[in-house]
Amino acid sequence: MTSSEKIWTAGLVIIGDEILSGRTHDKNIGQIASWLQVQGIRLSEVRVVSDEQDTIVEAVNALRVKNDYLFTTGGIGPTHDDITVDAIAAALGVEVIVHPEARAILERYYADKGGVNEGRLRMARVPDGADLIPNHKSGAPGIRHGNIFIMAGVPHITAGMLDALTGKLEGGLPLISETVGGFIPESEVAVLLREVEQAHDNCQIGSYPFFREGKVGSNFVIRSTDADAVNSCMDVLCEGLAENGWDFTPGGI
Amino acid sequence: MTSSEKIWTAGLVIIGDEILSGRTHDKNIGQIASWLQVQGIRLSEVRVVSDEQDTIVEAVNALRVKNDYLFTTGGIGPTHDDITVDAIAAALGVEVIVHPEARAILERYYADKGGVNEGRLRMARVPDGADLIPNHKSGAPGIRHGNIFIMAGVPHITAGMLDALTGKLEGGLPLISETVGGFIPESEVAVLLREVEQAHDNCQIGSYPFFREGKVGSNFVIRSTDADAVNSCMDVLCEGLAENGWDFTPGGI
Repeated sequence: MTSSEKIWTAGLVIIGDEILSGRTHDKNIGQIASWLQVQGIRLSEVRVVSDEQDTIVEAVNALRVKNDYLFTTGGIGPTHDDITVDAIAAALGVEVIVHPEARAILERYYADKGGVNEGRLRMARVPDGADLIPNHKSGAPGIRHGNIFIMAGVPHITAGMLDALTGKLEGGLPLISETVGGFIPESEVAVLLREVEQAHDNCQIGSYPFFREGKVGSNFVIRSTDADAVNSCMDVLCEGLAENGWDFTPGGI
Repeated sequence: MTSSEKIWTAGLVIIGDEILSGRTHDKNIGQIASWLQVQGIRLSEVRVVSDEQDTIVEAVNALRVKNDYLFTTGGIGPTHDDITVDAIAAALGVEVIVHPEARAILERYYADKGGVNEGRLRMARVPDGADLIPNHKSGAPGIRHGNIFIMAGVPHITAGMLDALTGKLEGGLPLISETVGGFIPESEVAVLLREVEQAHDNCQIGSYPFFREGKVGSNFVIRSTDADAVNSCMDVLCEGLAENGWDFTPGGI
């Protein structure tokens, strides 16, 4: 198996009571999932956990050993409920240290904002052995420790950190997807979908129903790392839909 | 400890490759979290997993034993990638059966839509011993098996199933929250927040920063099951903010 055939995976731990209480609607799952696809890395599992150290440690340890990469979001701010760094250090069995470069970044960032105080200095703390992930949107950097990437919870800051990591992580062939859709009830074509998928070893077909304009419809998404397989599978699926008298739109509706 | 003092918890398993690929942005975490709050049940953990039986079984078994309730969304439609019922039956060690009432519901629903076919009949399959959850938005019902609630993936259908369950699940005291906010950098008040929280045993204070109108601000959320404790904690926090010269807005901004 060559490097391009290996499937690279990532786990994601979303840390925050505000997501579990329904106060804040998470936007990081979607943006990290989409970004990983482009890097040739598959998001294999997400866990959303509360701001409690034991819970974070358990989720981090479960997902970091199962995957090539682990991302976390949330809990790296200046306040008492920001305990991600302590939890990840505990999960790794390393000390928490003040990173000199992070401290220097914060001192520069807060120079005209009242200077570094106890809360702000919390954001320079990292698990021993970590490097920093640049943050061009605000002061406090993200943190990388081995295969673990510790990101902000605020989505636009996370987005900036993802930008800084773009192209820097080894991945495999990106998963390619093609969509075809129409006002087709998925329950009318379930057998066709299953048979077409079974006839194309390297492809998965997902079926995503919707209601729109008072009508039932579906988009069918074919996914594979092999572009030829996707095209062949799409041709066979479209032939099957046509034979059954369905109107469909390549690209989906 | 009386029944009203017990903290009731729920786990949630979101099943679907479309969330992990970034194609679909999940809306069920938020709506289920908010609904559970009103029922006096805390969402303790969420896992987003792919459409693979072993992965679903592992997540379901992990969260159902840790919590009073387990909810799942996704994977109960008519197509080959809808395997939630099979996975949960495997997790419970029971057979999959066709539920007679579910079959009757589908036969009525599809009577003028071409009738029940192989795909549609999949939606009458349940883990043996299950009851149905009404679905007033489309044909196929949700499924309840003991403390497990198997819901649709399409958010407006899930919303209808939640409506049908409202007030039917035993819960504890709802978590009450009060918010105060302002154009206050959280890093300026981190010590105050920690001290106020430590002085109020039954309360948690969450700090949620934002950027708006070119300025940094935060909302501080006090949570407790004890309304008096929330009010007392809020008074002390507001006094502290005022003493430090910050403008703030009760209710948050």
